[in-house]
Amino acid sequence: MTIDDGPASDRVRLRRGANNGVYERQAVLDVLDAGLIAHVGVATDDGPIVIPMAYGRSDDSLYLHGSVANAALRAADGTDVCVTVTVIDGLIIGRSPFHNSMQYRSVVVRGRARRLQDDAERVDALRRVSNHVVATWDQARPPTADELRRTMVIAVPLLEMSAKVRTGGPVDEPEDLDGRHWGGSVPITSTFGDAVPSPDLRPGVGVPSSVAALDGTAVHGLTTRP
Amino acid sequence: MTIDDGPASDRVRLRRGANNGVYERQAVLDVLDAGLIAHVGVATDDGPIVIPMAYGRSDDSLYLHGSVANAALRAADGTDVCVTVTVIDGLIIGRSPFHNSMQYRSVVVRGRARRLQDDAERVDALRRVSNHVVATWDQARPPTADELRRTMVIAVPLLEMSAKVRTGGPVDEPEDLDGRHWGGSVPITSTFGDAVPSPDLRPGVGVPSSVAALDGTAVHGLTTRP
Repeated sequence: MTIDDGPASDRVRLRRGANNGVYERQAVLDVLDAGLIAHVGVATDDGPIVIPMAYGRSDDSLYLHGSVANAALRAADGTDVCVTVTVIDGLIIGRSPFHNSMQYRSVVVRGRARRLQDDAERVDALRRVSNHVVATWDQARPPTADELRRTMVIAVPLLEMSAKVRTGGPVDEPEDLDGRHWGGSVPITSTFGDAVPSPDLRPGVGVPSSVAALDGTAVHGLTTRP
Repeated sequence: MTIDDGPASDRVRLRRGANNGVYERQAVLDVLDAGLIAHVGVATDDGPIVIPMAYGRSDDSLYLHGSVANAALRAADGTDVCVTVTVIDGLIIGRSPFHNSMQYRSVVVRGRARRLQDDAERVDALRRVSNHVVATWDQARPPTADELRRTMVIAVPLLEMSAKVRTGGPVDEPEDLDGRHWGGSVPITSTFGDAVPSPDLRPGVGVPSSVAALDGTAVHGLTTRP
């Protein structure tokens, strides 16, 4: 991986493992698109809190959603947050534990969270969150006004962000290469299985094409989504 | 899931989705043991930062490690941190996007991070981090004094923690159950593949038994590890 552009700010500049740093915008977005969930860090009076959340994105914003009563999202509004998305592709096993690592793709986005108020903007964002992993929005019952009222949507600008991408095997000490210890990697593959209908599903209702198409496909193999 | 005990503190009490809350100690530890990486939240002068990290645990502490130059770990020492471990087991697709969710197991640990100074304690912690996913420690070249000097180890008490476990399908609106929209879930399975030797591996060095045993096994299926 090469660093194509510099980081947008010093606080997303990679220090450790800087040779695995990725700042080129499309490459960072590709990692975001391959991720399943985000880990969202919010400062609270009780110390930082990190919550796993679904997410989606537009060209310029990352979106999170939750109940209007969600304490972490309420605390996030108007403050600096950190949204981290990580995909683990495998284990890296060094001749020495010191050189153990993982094959991974990760993105860190830092920025001011803003609660969306405009209904059209909120619906657009919710559609993007829903469709991030699988495009179900147009095949589901549209949200009601009451459901929208009970949902908070938060936007974080896709400005200050960087990625790290680690591939390959261990980088061991030269003096270990002739030794008796093994070094290498173990791939991890995440795969969607066959759709399981809800026990209360009305007979005759078929699986949506977008859902049926997932069966047997790699979860993190996609780098672009509709 | 039932709540067997109360939370250890109010700041790890679940508010949203409280019916999926798990406070029983062994059940929380089982989720920690099934996880691959942690997302560690640290407060900095620049706002919160969330970094993916390997981890391990003893009966009473969770351990993180990194370079002595690691800025996030250095900032963490002596401060309140949040360590979140999440396993995604599937997608939940509601009749309405409002009821989309995921099948997941997650743990949040909050507490004061403490940098370990004692060498025996540090080596024990590093062994636990190394062995968390696969027991490679005893099959690798032991760490040198120099490698240990360049490694920082952080402990977080396993006291204030809670888990959330979501299984099953969507909980849809009663009026949608007779409708034309599908509801159900899509399982996600993560599997270890066949070990890949490092390109610079000396001919004749065999794959350690602990690594070879991973092939074809589920990444998150394990609930106890040595």
